[in-house]
Amino acid sequence: MEVTAIRSSAAPAVGFVAGDRILGIDPGLRLTGYGCLELRSRHDEPRVTDAGVLRLKTGAPMPYRLAELFDDLTGLLDELRPRLMVVEQLFSHYRHVRTSILMGHARGVVLLAGQSRGIEIGELLPTEVKKAITGYGHATKLQMQQAVQAQCRLTELPSPPDVADALAIALVAARRLERN
Amino acid sequence: MEVTAIRSSAAPAVGFVAGDRILGIDPGLRLTGYGCLELRSRHDEPRVTDAGVLRLKTGAPMPYRLAELFDDLTGLLDELRPRLMVVEQLFSHYRHVRTSILMGHARGVVLLAGQSRGIEIGELLPTEVKKAITGYGHATKLQMQQAVQAQCRLTELPSPPDVADALAIALVAARRLERN
Repeated sequence: MEVTAIRSSAAPAVGFVAGDRILGIDPGLRLTGYGCLELRSRHDEPRVTDAGVLRLKTGAPMPYRLAELFDDLTGLLDELRPRLMVVEQLFSHYRHVRTSILMGHARGVVLLAGQSRGIEIGELLPTEVKKAITGYGHATKLQMQQAVQAQCRLTELPSPPDVADALAIALVAARRLERN
Repeated sequence: MEVTAIRSSAAPAVGFVAGDRILGIDPGLRLTGYGCLELRSRHDEPRVTDAGVLRLKTGAPMPYRLAELFDDLTGLLDELRPRLMVVEQLFSHYRHVRTSILMGHARGVVLLAGQSRGIEIGELLPTEVKKAITGYGHATKLQMQQAVQAQCRLTELPSPPDVADALAIALVAARRLERN
Protein backbone atom coordinates (compact mmCIF):
# COMPACT_ATOMS: atom_id res chain seq x y z
CA MET A 1 0.00 0.00 0.00
CA GLU A 2 1.25 3.45 -0.81
CA VAL A 3 0.92 6.13 1.76
CA THR A 4 0.43 9.59 0.38
CA ALA A 5 1.66 12.51 2.38
CA ILE A 6 -0.75 15.33 1.66
CA ARG A 7 1.50 18.30 2.15
CA SER A 8 1.78 21.51 0.23
CA SER A 9 5.07 20.33 -1.16
CA ALA A 10 4.13 16.74 -1.94
CA ALA A 11 2.36 15.37 -4.96
CA PRO A 12 -1.34 15.02 -4.07
CA ALA A 13 -3.19 11.73 -4.29
CA VAL A 14 -4.98 11.17 -7.58
CA GLY A 15 -7.97 9.33 -8.97
CA PHE A 16 -10.54 10.36 -6.37
CA VAL A 17 -14.16 10.54 -7.55
CA ALA A 18 -17.50 11.80 -6.27
CA GLY A 19 -18.76 9.46 -3.55
CA ASP A 20 -15.27 8.76 -2.15
CA ARG A 21 -14.98 9.43 1.56
CA ILE A 22 -12.22 11.26 3.41
CA LEU A 23 -11.90 10.67 7.15
CA GLY A 24 -10.07 13.25 9.26
CA ILE A 25 -8.67 12.12 12.61
CA ASP A 26 -7.45 14.22 15.54
CA PRO A 27 -5.82 11.60 17.78
CA GLY A 28 -5.72 11.74 21.57
CA LEU A 29 -5.67 9.47 24.59
CA ARG A 30 -8.79 10.92 26.13
CA LEU A 31 -10.71 12.00 23.03
CA THR A 32 -10.04 11.19 19.39
CA GLY A 33 -12.03 13.42 17.05
CA TYR A 34 -13.21 12.15 13.69
CA GLY A 35 -14.94 13.79 10.76
CA CYS A 36 -16.00 12.11 7.54
CA LEU A 37 -16.65 13.96 4.28
CA GLU A 38 -18.01 12.63 1.03
CA LEU A 39 -16.63 14.12 -2.18
CA ARG A 40 -19.19 15.50 -4.61
CA SER A 41 -18.79 16.92 -8.06
CA ARG A 42 -15.77 19.05 -8.88
CA HIS A 43 -17.71 22.25 -8.19
CA ASP A 44 -19.46 21.32 -4.94
CA GLU A 45 -17.93 21.36 -1.48
CA PRO A 46 -17.75 17.90 0.10
CA ARG A 47 -20.63 16.86 2.35
CA VAL A 48 -20.27 15.91 6.04
CA THR A 49 -21.51 12.35 6.56
CA ASP A 50 -20.34 11.63 10.11
CA ALA A 51 -18.48 13.41 12.89
CA GLY A 52 -17.88 12.75 16.55
CA VAL A 53 -15.37 11.65 19.16
CA LEU A 54 -14.10 8.31 20.39
CA ARG A 55 -13.91 8.55 24.18
CA LEU A 56 -11.45 6.41 26.11
CA LYS A 57 -11.62 5.46 29.78
CA THR A 58 -9.13 7.89 31.27
CA GLY A 59 -8.59 5.89 34.46
CA ALA A 60 -7.77 2.65 32.63
CA PRO A 61 -4.18 1.45 32.09
CA MET A 62 -2.52 2.59 28.87
CA PRO A 63 -2.53 -0.79 27.03
CA TYR A 64 -6.26 -1.09 27.71
CA ARG A 65 -6.92 2.42 26.38
CA LEU A 66 -4.86 1.79 23.26
CA ALA A 67 -6.75 -1.44 22.56
CA GLU A 68 -10.05 0.41 23.03
CA LEU A 69 -8.91 3.10 20.58
CA PHE A 70 -7.82 0.48 18.04
CA ASP A 71 -11.12 -1.41 18.29
CA ASP A 72 -13.26 1.73 18.13
CA LEU A 73 -11.37 3.13 15.16
CA THR A 74 -11.27 -0.07 13.11
CA GLY A 75 -15.02 -0.38 13.80
CA LEU A 76 -15.48 3.15 12.46
CA LEU A 77 -13.33 2.42 9.39
CA ASP A 78 -15.35 -0.73 8.66
CA GLU A 79 -18.56 1.27 8.92
CA LEU A 80 -17.55 4.40 7.00
CA ARG A 81 -15.14 2.77 4.52
CA PRO A 82 -13.16 5.93 3.74
CA ARG A 83 -10.86 5.91 0.77
CA LEU A 84 -8.38 8.16 2.58
CA MET A 85 -7.68 8.74 6.29
CA VAL A 86 -5.88 11.97 7.14
CA VAL A 87 -4.20 12.43 10.50
CA GLU A 88 -2.66 15.45 12.17
CA GLN A 89 1.06 15.37 11.91
CA LEU A 90 2.56 15.71 15.35
CA PHE A 91 5.32 18.19 15.70
CA SER A 92 7.45 19.75 18.33
CA HIS A 93 4.74 22.10 19.51
CA TYR A 94 4.17 20.20 22.72
CA ARG A 95 5.59 21.84 25.78
CA HIS A 96 6.15 18.61 27.65
CA VAL A 97 8.07 15.64 26.32
CA ARG A 98 5.81 13.36 28.32
CA THR A 99 2.78 14.67 26.44
CA SER A 100 4.54 14.08 23.12
CA ILE A 101 5.27 10.47 24.04
CA LEU A 102 1.71 9.80 25.13
CA MET A 103 0.29 11.45 22.01
CA GLY A 104 2.71 9.33 20.00
CA HIS A 105 1.18 6.20 21.55
CA ALA A 106 -2.32 7.16 20.37
CA ARG A 107 -1.15 8.27 16.96
CA GLY A 108 0.80 5.06 16.40
CA VAL A 109 -2.35 3.06 17.09
CA VAL A 110 -4.39 5.27 14.73
CA LEU A 111 -1.89 4.74 11.87
CA LEU A 112 -1.84 1.01 12.59
CA ALA A 113 -5.65 0.86 12.46
CA GLY A 114 -5.68 2.55 9.04
CA GLN A 115 -2.93 0.33 7.72
CA SER A 116 -4.69 -2.80 9.04
CA ARG A 117 -7.71 -1.89 6.90
CA GLY A 118 -5.59 -1.09 3.82
CA ILE A 119 -6.69 2.54 3.78
CA GLU A 120 -4.51 5.21 2.20
CA ILE A 121 -3.13 7.48 4.92
CA GLY A 122 -2.23 11.15 4.65
CA GLU A 123 -0.80 13.68 7.06
CA LEU A 124 -1.31 17.40 7.49
CA LEU A 125 0.39 19.81 9.87
CA PRO A 126 -1.96 21.43 12.42
CA THR A 127 -0.74 24.90 11.47
CA GLU A 128 -1.32 24.16 7.79
CA VAL A 129 -4.92 23.09 8.51
CA LYS A 130 -5.59 26.13 10.68
CA LYS A 131 -4.18 28.47 8.07
CA ALA A 132 -6.22 26.90 5.26
CA ILE A 133 -9.47 27.06 7.27
CA THR A 134 -9.16 30.39 9.12
CA GLY A 135 -6.35 32.17 7.27
CA TYR A 136 -4.31 32.10 10.47
CA GLY A 137 -1.89 29.30 11.49
CA HIS A 138 -2.43 29.91 15.20
CA ALA A 139 -6.22 30.14 15.28
CA THR A 140 -7.92 29.43 18.61
CA LYS A 141 -10.13 26.39 19.17
CA LEU A 142 -13.26 28.56 18.97
CA GLN A 143 -12.12 30.22 15.73
CA MET A 144 -11.62 26.76 14.26
CA GLN A 145 -15.05 25.59 15.43
CA GLN A 146 -16.76 28.65 13.94
CA ALA A 147 -14.89 28.40 10.63
CA VAL A 148 -15.68 24.69 10.32
CA GLN A 149 -19.34 25.27 11.16
CA ALA A 150 -19.60 27.91 8.41
CA GLN A 151 -17.62 26.05 5.76
CA CYS A 152 -19.33 22.71 6.39
CA ARG A 153 -22.73 24.45 6.67
CA LEU A 154 -23.50 22.86 10.03
CA THR A 155 -26.53 24.01 12.03
CA GLU A 156 -24.58 23.78 15.30
CA LEU A 157 -21.05 24.58 16.44
CA PRO A 158 -19.05 21.34 16.11
CA SER A 159 -18.14 20.39 19.67
CA PRO A 160 -15.90 19.37 21.42
CA PRO A 161 -13.12 21.19 19.46
CA ASP A 162 -11.61 17.77 18.56
CA VAL A 163 -14.56 17.22 16.18
CA ALA A 164 -13.99 20.58 14.49
CA ASP A 165 -10.28 19.81 14.13
CA ALA A 166 -11.00 16.41 12.58
CA LEU A 167 -13.52 17.90 10.13
CA ALA A 168 -11.05 20.66 9.28
CA ILE A 169 -8.33 18.10 8.47
CA ALA A 170 -10.71 16.19 6.20
CA LEU A 171 -11.91 19.39 4.53
CA VAL A 172 -8.41 20.66 3.72
CA ALA A 173 -7.42 17.25 2.36
CA ALA A 174 -10.63 16.96 0.32
CA ARG A 175 -10.19 20.41 -1.25
CA ARG A 176 -6.68 19.55 -2.31
CA LEU A 177 -7.83 16.29 -3.84
CA GLU A 178 -10.65 17.91 -5.73
CA ARG A 179 -8.34 20.35 -7.42
CA ASN A 180 -7.05 17.54 -9.59
CA MET B 1 -7.03 -7.79 32.30
CA GLU B 2 -4.98 -6.18 35.02
CA VAL B 3 -1.80 -4.43 34.11
CA THR B 4 0.86 -4.56 36.74
CA ALA B 5 3.34 -1.74 36.96
CA ILE B 6 6.56 -3.31 38.16
CA ARG B 7 8.12 -0.38 39.92
CA SER B 8 10.05 -0.17 43.13
CA SER B 9 7.12 1.55 44.73
CA ALA B 10 4.33 -0.61 43.32
CA ALA B 11 3.08 -3.95 44.56
CA PRO B 12 4.77 -6.66 42.48
CA ALA B 13 2.82 -9.22 40.48
CA VAL B 14 2.12 -12.47 42.33
CA GLY B 15 1.52 -16.12 41.62
CA PHE B 16 4.38 -16.74 39.19
CA VAL B 17 5.80 -20.27 39.11
CA ALA B 18 8.81 -22.07 37.60
CA GLY B 19 8.29 -22.43 33.84
CA ASP B 20 6.56 -19.06 33.48
CA ARG B 21 8.17 -16.82 30.87
CA ILE B 22 9.00 -13.14 31.11
CA LEU B 23 9.55 -11.21 27.88
CA GLY B 24 11.55 -7.97 27.99
CA ILE B 25 11.01 -5.48 25.15
CA ASP B 26 13.12 -2.47 24.17
CA PRO B 27 10.90 -0.76 21.58
CA GLY B 28 12.19 1.20 18.60
CA LEU B 29 11.23 2.08 15.05
CA ARG B 30 14.36 0.63 13.51
CA LEU B 31 15.15 -2.17 15.95
CA THR B 32 13.02 -3.58 18.74
CA GLY B 33 15.05 -5.77 21.11
CA TYR B 34 13.45 -8.74 22.84
CA GLY B 35 14.69 -11.14 25.48
CA CYS B 36 12.76 -14.04 26.96
CA LEU B 37 13.55 -15.65 30.30
CA GLU B 38 12.02 -18.73 31.89
CA LEU B 39 11.62 -18.72 35.66
CA ARG B 40 13.16 -21.66 37.50
CA SER B 41 13.06 -22.59 41.16
CA ARG B 42 13.20 -19.89 43.80
CA HIS B 43 16.97 -20.29 44.19
CA ASP B 44 18.02 -20.43 40.54
CA GLU B 45 18.45 -17.48 38.22
CA PRO B 46 16.00 -17.50 35.29
CA ARG B 47 17.18 -19.08 32.05
CA VAL B 48 17.38 -17.26 28.69
CA THR B 49 15.15 -19.02 26.15
CA ASP B 50 15.17 -16.52 23.27
CA ALA B 51 16.66 -13.15 22.45
CA GLY B 52 17.00 -11.05 19.33
CA VAL B 53 15.76 -8.00 17.46
CA LEU B 54 12.80 -7.26 15.24
CA ARG B 55 14.13 -5.21 12.34
CA LEU B 56 11.84 -2.81 10.50
CA LYS B 57 12.29 -1.42 7.00
CA THR B 58 13.61 2.03 7.76
CA GLY B 59 12.72 3.49 4.37
CA ALA B 60 9.08 2.38 4.52
CA PRO B 61 6.25 4.77 5.51
CA MET B 62 5.41 4.88 9.21
CA PRO B 63 2.03 3.06 9.07
CA TYR B 64 3.72 0.21 7.20
CA ARG B 65 6.51 -0.03 9.77
CA LEU B 66 4.05 0.01 12.65
CA ALA B 67 2.01 -2.79 11.05
CA GLU B 68 5.21 -4.79 10.54
CA LEU B 69 6.15 -4.29 14.20
CA PHE B 70 2.67 -5.34 15.33
CA ASP B 71 2.69 -8.47 13.17
CA ASP B 72 6.24 -9.48 14.16
CA LEU B 73 5.59 -8.96 17.84
CA THR B 74 2.24 -10.74 18.00
CA GLY B 75 3.92 -13.60 16.11
CA LEU B 76 6.64 -13.68 18.76
CA LEU B 77 4.08 -13.58 21.59
CA ASP B 78 2.15 -16.47 20.02
CA GLU B 79 5.36 -18.47 19.77
CA LEU B 80 6.90 -17.70 23.17
CA ARG B 81 3.68 -17.35 25.16
CA PRO B 82 5.13 -15.22 27.95
CA ARG B 83 3.11 -14.75 31.10
CA LEU B 84 4.42 -11.20 31.49
CA MET B 85 5.74 -8.67 28.98
CA VAL B 86 7.89 -5.87 30.41
CA VAL B 87 8.55 -2.70 28.43
CA GLU B 88 10.88 0.20 29.02
CA GLN B 89 9.03 3.14 30.39
CA LEU B 90 9.71 6.15 28.22
CA PHE B 91 10.63 9.28 29.99
CA SER B 92 11.74 12.76 29.27
CA HIS B 93 15.32 11.77 28.61
CA TYR B 94 15.03 12.33 24.89
CA ARG B 95 16.70 15.45 23.63
CA HIS B 96 14.35 15.92 20.73
CA VAL B 97 10.59 16.05 20.99
CA ARG B 98 10.38 14.49 17.54
CA THR B 99 12.26 11.42 18.74
CA SER B 100 9.91 11.10 21.72
CA ILE B 101 6.88 11.19 19.46
CA LEU B 102 8.30 8.57 17.10
CA MET B 103 9.33 6.31 20.00
CA GLY B 104 5.84 6.77 21.37
CA HIS B 105 4.40 5.41 18.10
CA ALA B 106 6.42 2.20 18.42
CA ARG B 107 5.75 1.82 22.12
CA GLY B 108 2.00 2.28 21.63
CA VAL B 109 1.99 -0.53 19.10
CA VAL B 110 4.03 -2.77 21.45
CA LEU B 111 1.56 -2.23 24.30
CA LEU B 112 -1.35 -2.87 21.93
CA ALA B 113 0.22 -6.14 20.76
CA GLY B 114 0.58 -7.37 24.37
CA GLN B 115 -2.95 -6.32 25.22
CA SER B 116 -4.34 -7.99 22.08
CA ARG B 117 -2.87 -11.29 23.30
CA GLY B 118 -4.15 -10.82 26.87
CA ILE B 119 -0.65 -10.74 28.32
CA GLU B 120 0.07 -8.98 31.60
CA ILE B 121 2.18 -5.88 30.92
CA GLY B 122 4.74 -4.29 33.21
CA GLU B 123 6.94 -1.22 32.92
CA LEU B 124 10.40 -0.42 34.21
CA LEU B 125 12.37 2.80 33.99
CA PRO B 126 15.60 2.54 31.94
CA THR B 127 17.63 4.03 34.81
CA GLU B 128 16.11 1.56 37.26
CA VAL B 129 17.10 -1.36 35.01
CA LYS B 130 20.62 -0.04 34.51
CA LYS B 131 21.08 0.50 38.22
CA ALA B 132 19.82 -2.97 39.11
CA ILE B 133 22.08 -4.65 36.51
CA THR B 134 25.29 -2.58 36.73
CA GLY B 135 24.90 -0.67 39.98
CA TYR B 136 24.90 2.56 37.98
CA GLY B 137 21.81 4.29 36.57
CA HIS B 138 23.72 5.82 33.67
CA ALA B 139 25.69 2.77 32.51
CA THR B 140 26.92 2.78 28.91
CA LYS B 141 25.61 0.39 26.29
CA LEU B 142 28.78 -1.71 26.52
CA GLN B 143 28.60 -1.89 30.32
CA MET B 144 25.03 -3.15 30.00
CA GLN B 145 26.00 -5.73 27.38
CA GLN B 146 28.86 -7.03 29.56
CA ALA B 147 26.74 -7.16 32.73
CA VAL B 148 23.92 -8.99 30.93
CA GLN B 149 26.37 -11.45 29.37
CA ALA B 150 27.80 -12.28 32.81
CA GLN B 151 24.51 -12.42 34.68
CA CYS B 152 22.70 -14.47 32.01
CA ARG B 153 25.81 -16.67 31.56
CA LEU B 154 25.90 -16.12 27.80
CA THR B 155 28.90 -17.34 25.80
CA GLU B 156 28.84 -14.20 23.63
CA LEU B 157 28.24 -10.52 24.18
CA PRO B 158 24.52 -9.90 23.51
CA SER B 159 24.45 -7.68 20.43
CA PRO B 160 23.15 -5.25 19.22
CA PRO B 161 22.76 -3.39 22.54
CA ASP B 162 18.94 -3.50 22.11
CA VAL B 163 19.07 -7.24 22.85
CA ALA B 164 21.06 -6.68 26.04
CA ASP B 165 18.60 -3.98 27.14
CA ALA B 166 15.63 -6.26 26.53
CA LEU B 167 17.24 -9.14 28.46
CA ALA B 168 18.14 -6.74 31.27
CA ILE B 169 14.52 -5.57 31.53
CA ALA B 170 13.30 -9.17 31.71
CA LEU B 171 15.97 -10.10 34.25
CA VAL B 172 15.17 -7.25 36.62
CA ALA B 173 11.45 -8.01 36.39
CA ALA B 174 12.04 -11.75 36.92
CA ARG B 175 14.19 -11.19 40.00
CA ARG B 176 11.54 -9.04 41.56
CA LEU B 177 8.88 -11.62 40.84
CA GLU B 178 10.91 -14.44 42.27
CA ARG B 179 11.34 -12.69 45.58
CA ASN B 180 7.72 -13.46 46.37
